[in-house]
Amino acid sequence: MAVTVAVDANGADLGPAEVARGAAELVEADPDVRVVLFGPAAELPSLPAGVEVVDAPVSIAKEADPARAVRARKDASIVQAWGAVADGRADALVSGGSTGAALAAGLFAVKRARGIYRPALAIVVPAPDHPFLLLDAGANAEVRPEHLVQFAHMGAAYAREVLGVTAPRVALLSNGTEPSKGTALVQAAQAALADMPGFVGQVEGFTVHGGDCDVLVADGFTGNVMLKTMEGTLKAVLGAVRSAATSSLSAKAGGLLLRPALGGLRSDLDPELQGGAVLLGLRRPAVVPHGSFTRRGFATAIARAASAVERDVVGRTHAALEAAGALRRAPEPSEAGATVRGT
Amino acid sequence: MAVTVAVDANGADLGPAEVARGAAELVEADPDVRVVLFGPAAELPSLPAGVEVVDAPVSIAKEADPARAVRARKDASIVQAWGAVADGRADALVSGGSTGAALAAGLFAVKRARGIYRPALAIVVPAPDHPFLLLDAGANAEVRPEHLVQFAHMGAAYAREVLGVTAPRVALLSNGTEPSKGTALVQAAQAALADMPGFVGQVEGFTVHGGDCDVLVADGFTGNVMLKTMEGTLKAVLGAVRSAATSSLSAKAGGLLLRPALGGLRSDLDPELQGGAVLLGLRRPAVVPHGSFTRRGFATAIARAASAVERDVVGRTHAALEAAGALRRAPEPSEAGATVRGT
Repeated sequence: MAVTVAVDANGADLGPAEVARGAAELVEADPDVRVVLFGPAAELPSLPAGVEVVDAPVSIAKEADPARAVRARKDASIVQAWGAVADGRADALVSGGSTGAALAAGLFAVKRARGIYRPALAIVVPAPDHPFLLLDAGANAEVRPEHLVQFAHMGAAYAREVLGVTAPRVALLSNGTEPSKGTALVQAAQAALADMPGFVGQVEGFTVHGGDCDVLVADGFTGNVMLKTMEGTLKAVLGAVRSAATSSLSAKAGGLLLRPALGGLRSDLDPELQGGAVLLGLRRPAVVPHGSFTRRGFATAIARAASAVERDVVGRTHAALEAAGALRRAPEPSEAGATVRGT
Repeated sequence: MAVTVAVDANGADLGPAEVARGAAELVEADPDVRVVLFGPAAELPSLPAGVEVVDAPVSIAKEADPARAVRARKDASIVQAWGAVADGRADALVSGGSTGAALAAGLFAVKRARGIYRPALAIVVPAPDHPFLLLDAGANAEVRPEHLVQFAHMGAAYAREVLGVTAPRVALLSNGTEPSKGTALVQAAQAALADMPGFVGQVEGFTVHGGDCDVLVADGFTGNVMLKTMEGTLKAVLGAVRSAATSSLSAKAGGLLLRPALGGLRSDLDPELQGGAVLLGLRRPAVVPHGSFTRRGFATAIARAASAVERDVVGRTHAALEAAGALRRAPEPSEAGATVRGT
């Protein structure tokens, strides 16, 4: 069965044409995937048959208040792309623009999945040898224990169905590993997750090296700090290695000889290979590649979105939450919309 | 004027003799510093005149409940060492054992400094080119805005007086840089710090690379996650560089040529050079080196503690808090003791 992915081509650093080329590469590699591309038709290259273009030059990717921009600009490419998912012309969404706008437009167009309190932003952290899925990476700065419980099940379902981790180990990010550690929030979530298959308790920031878990659950504030700390540390260390490799003539020679092998390392750590962030908890799958990606990263993002549809991540997440008794019982007035905080 | 530092020799991974050798090195290098060393006299080497030994073989460094152990074992080396500070035989404390025990015993023996809500654990993060002081790194998992405000002033005073940063830039760790970002806690602290000299607002985890601040303020949960994420990422990257350097014959040759320069990098990043964590907010300065340190790290820790005394960090912190109107007004019953959470 063919899967159709709606792609917002606006907002990427390299421009809409780069996103379009990523879409072209993917539909040529996988004939089961079709793309409807929303962007400025005048700026797009000629594209293969599997990519349909809808002219949508208006972008709200740089707007400071995404929720307001979504309501104000019905013609924005992200609003039209989500509209296509909402009315069944497409099955999933990919946006190269702002995460905040993708989330706000998604909440507006397709809503949260049944029984979900809050959508979360999940990112595969490409740690060498043992990548892990981190969520929430920034959609919800403040959460309640029942939100963390849902993040755990949402992340486990995605890791199993899309990332191919057979029995994901799920952990709570904390300041220690003993059950007595953590804030009141972490402790309450820990108690509620005790019976979840694969739940391994609390892990620390060290896990980037240790590989203690496949799914790492955090509130969006702490998860965001962790993600950016990893990026900052990685840059600092690779920068320092680079200066070391030019500090003397023999070090320079060593650096040159080592360069091909370090190229391998760089691609292990390369976030493009993972396709970017995933919005979990909406009625339809959505992937948000980083704005800095090249066509290769956008192609991966579209592939990930398509496989989330094929593997019915939304349905399986619902079934897991139902089995765990962790679905939201009834709508609460205060929960009318998730807080939208960009990363 | 000579400064005397009480040193608990128990709890270090390399044993009390290694701590003693660090003390010996330091008093030989700096005749203005004297050490009173609390540890198992039978296990210690012969020491120079500046190091006095008090036989204290009992260690509570491995106890799970430090506060209880401190009350139960008056003969423990950390309790005796803090006792020497409390009764004026020494001016500051260094412990190679557990941070939790050092904090619990310090609260018991010398109490919090006047007007301080909670002591905090501060660590110099040895980021290449621009180290910064991170606090709280784990003493207080949950805090209020007024605690973060005090951490900011405590950290700025230490950075200025002991680390030699002339005009420290102070930031709040957050999930964004705009003033609208952060949790309610971060936003309240931001408003209260608006007039602090050197306050630069919110920074993200990226700051490990960017060098946006000299003092980074966080609650102890987030600070602890950040610290351990840096350590985990550093280990993962250096491990990956090491495997890259042995992946082929030419890469191996490159690795060998590069090794001396990478040795320089390792020492830039070496936490021993910073002397370990500092407990700020007690009536007397205290430094807690990492248990894994060698004599060199312990010598640095003792030097840091002595310079905190010489520069009157406790008094200057009080003056800064008073000028900012950020001293605790009156004791509250719920604030009888800081939460002791080890790192």
